[in-house]
Amino acid sequence: MRKKQLPAGTHDKLFRRAAGVYQLEVQVNQLLSKRGFQRIETPTIEFAEVFEDERNQDDLYRFFDNQGRMLTLRPDMTLPVGRVVASTKVELPLKLSYSGKVFRYHDEMKGLQNEFTQAGVEIIGFPSIKAEFEAILTAEFVLRSLNVPNFSIEIGHAGIFEKIVQELAFSTKEAEALKIHFLNKSISDCYQVATAHPSPVSAFLIALPKLFGEVGPTLAKAKDLLPKQHPILTDLAEIEALVALFPEAIQKKLRVDLGMVGVMDYYTGILFSSFSEGIPENFLSGGRYDYLFQRFDMEQTNSVGWAMNLEAVFDALYRHHEKPQGQKILVHFDASVAEQAAALVEPGVELSLFDTAEETRSFAKRWGYQEVWFLTDQQFVKEGINHD
Amino acid sequence: MRKKQLPAGTHDKLFRRAAGVYQLEVQVNQLLSKRGFQRIETPTIEFAEVFEDERNQDDLYRFFDNQGRMLTLRPDMTLPVGRVVASTKVELPLKLSYSGKVFRYHDEMKGLQNEFTQAGVEIIGFPSIKAEFEAILTAEFVLRSLNVPNFSIEIGHAGIFEKIVQELAFSTKEAEALKIHFLNKSISDCYQVATAHPSPVSAFLIALPKLFGEVGPTLAKAKDLLPKQHPILTDLAEIEALVALFPEAIQKKLRVDLGMVGVMDYYTGILFSSFSEGIPENFLSGGRYDYLFQRFDMEQTNSVGWAMNLEAVFDALYRHHEKPQGQKILVHFDASVAEQAAALVEPGVELSLFDTAEETRSFAKRWGYQEVWFLTDQQFVKEGINHD
Repeated sequence: MRKKQLPAGTHDKLFRRAAGVYQLEVQVNQLLSKRGFQRIETPTIEFAEVFEDERNQDDLYRFFDNQGRMLTLRPDMTLPVGRVVASTKVELPLKLSYSGKVFRYHDEMKGLQNEFTQAGVEIIGFPSIKAEFEAILTAEFVLRSLNVPNFSIEIGHAGIFEKIVQELAFSTKEAEALKIHFLNKSISDCYQVATAHPSPVSAFLIALPKLFGEVGPTLAKAKDLLPKQHPILTDLAEIEALVALFPEAIQKKLRVDLGMVGVMDYYTGILFSSFSEGIPENFLSGGRYDYLFQRFDMEQTNSVGWAMNLEAVFDALYRHHEKPQGQKILVHFDASVAEQAAALVEPGVELSLFDTAEETRSFAKRWGYQEVWFLTDQQFVKEGINHD
Repeated sequence: MRKKQLPAGTHDKLFRRAAGVYQLEVQVNQLLSKRGFQRIETPTIEFAEVFEDERNQDDLYRFFDNQGRMLTLRPDMTLPVGRVVASTKVELPLKLSYSGKVFRYHDEMKGLQNEFTQAGVEIIGFPSIKAEFEAILTAEFVLRSLNVPNFSIEIGHAGIFEKIVQELAFSTKEAEALKIHFLNKSISDCYQVATAHPSPVSAFLIALPKLFGEVGPTLAKAKDLLPKQHPILTDLAEIEALVALFPEAIQKKLRVDLGMVGVMDYYTGILFSSFSEGIPENFLSGGRYDYLFQRFDMEQTNSVGWAMNLEAVFDALYRHHEKPQGQKILVHFDASVAEQAAALVEPGVELSLFDTAEETRSFAKRWGYQEVWFLTDQQFVKEGINHD
C-alpha cells in the first residue's frame, strides 16, 4: 500500500511552513511587480526537447503522451521562457518575472528535494550592462526586503572559464573535468592541470581556486597573474565596471569569485550568486545568457536572469524565530442565531463549528484562541481562555 | 522539432492574464487565511495509488520512478489532503486551505485544459452542519470579495441519488448510467428509467431533472412527489435546515438542484456548486465527504470541502474590462550617476536599461510610460511622452 506514502524527494508542508513559504513567494512577486517586472507563467509539463542538451536527461522526470511524445516536468524556468519568447510574437525588450514549482529527479538515497519553489526574473533584449545592474539591484532589493540576514552577492564571469579552455585547446571532455575542479575549488586539481598544460594562463589558473573575496584586492591580484592584453582582462574589466555602478551601501555586499562557472551551458557573461549566514548553499543565482535563444532558432538576444530557491530562503529566515500570534477569537453559536454569528466574523474572529460549548472550549485551548464568544438568542457572553 | 511547441491542453500565460490569475490566487488565499483557514501544500507528484478507484486512470498523467513505482500528477487536492491527515499525526478538527496546479490528461482533440489552478478548503473533523454553513459562507465571502458578477450557489444532496439507486436495487453499472442521466438533466432518460422500474420514487425521479431553482418552492414540490416518511425527505430537511442558517442577503443567492450528483464517489451529504453569468460551467464546487478517510485506513471522519477553478473565475471577471494603468516612469541614466538613478526607483518608477536616449524614448512610447527622466552628472530633465 503506497497510498499513504510520498515519492522520493517530495514533502508535505503544513501550517507555519506552508504559510511561510507561500507568503515569501507572494512577497517576492509583489516586490518584482513594483520594480516593473511583468509576470509570465508557463506550464509545469513541457516536451522534453525544450531541455535537451542543456540538462542531464537522467535528472528529468520523463513520461509519454498517448502519441508517444516525451514529456517532462520543467527543471527550471529559463528555458521555457526562452521557448515562449521564441515562439510567440512578444515584443522585446522585456523584463519578466515568474514563480512556481520546478522538478529534478534524484533517487531517495540522495536526500535532495525533487520538487521545490523558484522565483526569478529574465531581462531580455537589453545589450547594455545596465541589464546586469538592474538584475543585481533587484536581487539585492528583494533579499533586503525579505530581511535575509547578512547576505552577500558574489560576481564572476563565464568568459574566464571559457577563455582558459580555449587557451588550453581542451576537448569537451577535458573542459567538463576542469569545470568540476572549478566548482570544487580544487587547488590541487587546478595546479595539476596548469602544470600538465603549460600556457600563458598557468599562474592565473593555479591561483584561481583562491581568487574570491573583496572586489578590489581580488581583481588586482588576478590582473597581476595574467599576461598584458590577455582577453580575460576584458572580463575582469567588465566586473569592475559593473561593481562601480552600485551605491556604496550595496557595493559593501558585493564580492567576486573568479572561479565561478555557470551551472548551465547557456551562460555567456557576468555570473552571480547570493549567499547568507545560515543557508548552506547559494539560494539565488543567475547571469547573462546571450546564446540561449539560438537553440530556439531565434537570432542572438541579450538576456540576464536569476532564480531563487524560496524553500532555502524560508529555512534561513524562520529557522529560529516564531511568528507572533495575533488576536484569535472563536464564536460559538446556536443555530437560531447563525445569521448574527456570521456577522461577527472578521480577521481574527472565526465561527466555532462545534455543536457543544465543551468542544469549542477545548478546541480554543488547544489552538491558542484568547477568547470564546457564546451567542444564543438570549445572550452574548465573552469568555477568556486560560492557557496556563 | 517540438522544442517550440506545447503539450496538449497546456498554455503559456503572459502579461495581464499571468498577473491576473496570480493576483486572484493571492487574494483567495488571503481571504481564506483571514477566515482562519490554515494553508497546506502537498507535492505535485504523488503515487498513483492515492487516486486509485476514485479517478478514471486514463485521465491521469502516469509515469514511473526508477524502482518501477507508478507516479502521477495530482488531479485534485482533496485526496492528497486526505493522505496527509491519515498519515501524519495532525490533530483534528482543522480548517485547511490550499492552492496550486492540478492536472487531468485529455487528448488534444477535446480542447480541455490539462493543467489549471485550483484553490479550496477542507473542513475536517466537524460533524455539525455548521461545517457546511462555514464552507458555503466562506465560498460566498470569497466570490463576493472578488466581485464575481451575479453568482448563485446551488445546493443538492448526494443522498438523493444514493437512495434512488437503493430503491431501484440498481447494479453499479445501472447506477453509473443513471448518474449520467442526472448530470445531463435528461428528462426522457429519467422518465424511461422510472417507467421501466416502477417504485415509490417514480414520480419524484420523473420530475427530478426539473427540480432545481428557488429553494422554498422547489423543496415543496419535491416533498409532494415523495411518499410520506421516505428517507429522501431527511435529505430535503437537511437542505432546508442548512439554508435557514444563512442571513437573508446570502439566502437570496442560494438555489437548490435536487438532481445534483457528486462528481467524485466520495461525496456523502450536502453538495454545492457555484455559477455566474458569463462563466459557462460551475467554477466552484464541493460538499460533504465523510467516507474519504476510510480509503486511507482511518476511521470515518466528517469533512466538508470545496475547490474553485481560478482560470474560469479570471475569465468571468476580466473578459470585458481592462485594468487601469497606474503611473509609469522610466529613468534614463549615465553610468556615472547609476547610484543616483537607483535611488529614484520606487513603485511606478523604473530604470531604463538602454544605453541611448532614443531607445528609451521609443520603449516608453511603446509600453505606455507617461514620462522619461533623463539623469546625467550635469542635469536632471523630466520629459513627457506623447501617446497620440
